[in-house]
Amino acid sequence: MSLLTVGTVAFDAIETPFGKTDKIVGGAATYIAWGASFFSKKVNIVSVIGDDFDMKELELLQNRGVDISGIEIKNGKKSFFWSGKYHLDMNTRDTLITDLNVLLEFNPIIPESYQSSDIVLLGNIDPNLQLKVLNQLQNRPKLIILDTMNFWMTPTYKPQLMEVLKKIDVLTINDAEARELSGEYSLVKAAKAILTMGPKYLVIKKGEHGALLFYENNVFFAPALPLEDVFDPTGAGDTFAGGFAGYLDKSRDISFNNMKRAIIYGSAMASFCVEEFGTEKLKTLSHSAIEERVKSFVELVQFDIVLED
Amino acid sequence: MSLLTVGTVAFDAIETPFGKTDKIVGGAATYIAWGASFFSKKVNIVSVIGDDFDMKELELLQNRGVDISGIEIKNGKKSFFWSGKYHLDMNTRDTLITDLNVLLEFNPIIPESYQSSDIVLLGNIDPNLQLKVLNQLQNRPKLIILDTMNFWMTPTYKPQLMEVLKKIDVLTINDAEARELSGEYSLVKAAKAILTMGPKYLVIKKGEHGALLFYENNVFFAPALPLEDVFDPTGAGDTFAGGFAGYLDKSRDISFNNMKRAIIYGSAMASFCVEEFGTEKLKTLSHSAIEERVKSFVELVQFDIVLED
Repeated sequence: MSLLTVGTVAFDAIETPFGKTDKIVGGAATYIAWGASFFSKKVNIVSVIGDDFDMKELELLQNRGVDISGIEIKNGKKSFFWSGKYHLDMNTRDTLITDLNVLLEFNPIIPESYQSSDIVLLGNIDPNLQLKVLNQLQNRPKLIILDTMNFWMTPTYKPQLMEVLKKIDVLTINDAEARELSGEYSLVKAAKAILTMGPKYLVIKKGEHGALLFYENNVFFAPALPLEDVFDPTGAGDTFAGGFAGYLDKSRDISFNNMKRAIIYGSAMASFCVEEFGTEKLKTLSHSAIEERVKSFVELVQFDIVLED
Repeated sequence: MSLLTVGTVAFDAIETPFGKTDKIVGGAATYIAWGASFFSKKVNIVSVIGDDFDMKELELLQNRGVDISGIEIKNGKKSFFWSGKYHLDMNTRDTLITDLNVLLEFNPIIPESYQSSDIVLLGNIDPNLQLKVLNQLQNRPKLIILDTMNFWMTPTYKPQLMEVLKKIDVLTINDAEARELSGEYSLVKAAKAILTMGPKYLVIKKGEHGALLFYENNVFFAPALPLEDVFDPTGAGDTFAGGFAGYLDKSRDISFNNMKRAIIYGSAMASFCVEEFGTEKLKTLSHSAIEERVKSFVELVQFDIVLED
């Protein structure tokens, strides 16, 4: 099985209460690819970068079975750059710089060799581009997952977002975005409303408070692992989505029960991501460390109650 | 087995986005007694009220096996009264009125008939009074649980709070209070610090985000049930504590594993509490409804992962 993801590959400069970085490699598709690469045999990326990009970082992904032939390199142009500073609570941040650069001309083209991807994960970009990607697919993938954000829920972009929502299977957004998209404060009501917009599954990411998976009248909750230190939250949501999609791809099972497992694996991947700056922790991660972490999740929520009938 | 609780029995006037009440019966000990009465054979209350109190409400508790002989009635005095207004998010509220009234002269006296209580749950009151209660006990109870709040962590009261913490087994506070008490932002670090202050167990209540139980190097997480509507959050924390303590009392088991179950039962009781104003929902609750609700908690977090060794 293989996974196709479309999204940003970028430079970030991050400041947290624990330290700050120079330009390091980031972007949604980068984190997605790292998260998925521990499960999927082949991860196909479509993105755009400038000729200033650090190609050694892409080689690390190639070594993990990630196909980067769909990343367009624009000569004489600069890569997308984002800089932000996190507050002490690590849940809020100020954006310091957003230089869209090559992202302004991003026109995603799906290479022929990517056409057989079983799962498609559309990272958080303009819904017009997400739609453009879906329209290029010759066969419908087994599963289409879409990540988006509040920016695309403003009047300018919402009609296109609603269009693309009709074509997908799983939507991943955070709690504030679920409230904004649905106009409902209660997440249960928000989920009911959103599940009428197209997606069959809704994942609501609540950061340090875990994630909820809604499907028909079912709801599953996965906690976030309580960590001693959250060093850098950048990319946690994308790494989660990558782990989630990668696990589904590897296990060849897109049932609700398997999505629960995929959410636990995604949460485990996110819990590693935040332990160091950028993708650093993911670069040194082993499969046994992932299994150990998943075991911690099992222990965290495990209890035995004998119910009376 | 029996349970002793000491705390406020009061009048509340509550305004939420869904409606408002006149003076209704509230107070920490009231909610604790309601929560515990579905499990404990006997709940003993120590509190103080004025002669303006609604005695019919106390009779309802008596009918549920609650001993109210330890509630002192001060003639010619008024009961403690609190009035508050919740914001749309239901997590924040403004206090409109706090009339301490009889609470100003509260001097808790433990009746002889309460001396054999197996579990003691000290509701959120002045730590000087909590200490006074413990000093009156002829034998150490099997388990002492203490609830408190940020107000008692200010310099005036903190020395007394630290004194009483040395004498208890379980502390229940919310996430902001855990951070304030420990001076640590990370809840894992906060828990480590607090577990050196006296309590062997720490329950961190996170409202709609669930609850964490820390014990030695173990941590257990119980989610809150995602609800369509939270109607009135008043008393949810106390109802949780009452259900938690009542379940431990009923099952005669204060092990870590049983505390996990007790947290699930406490969370179930709290989830009912918030569905109507004040104690209304608790008045009509059946044991089968509680079992049904606990089943929802099991389904909410249940997943099966076969771990590689």
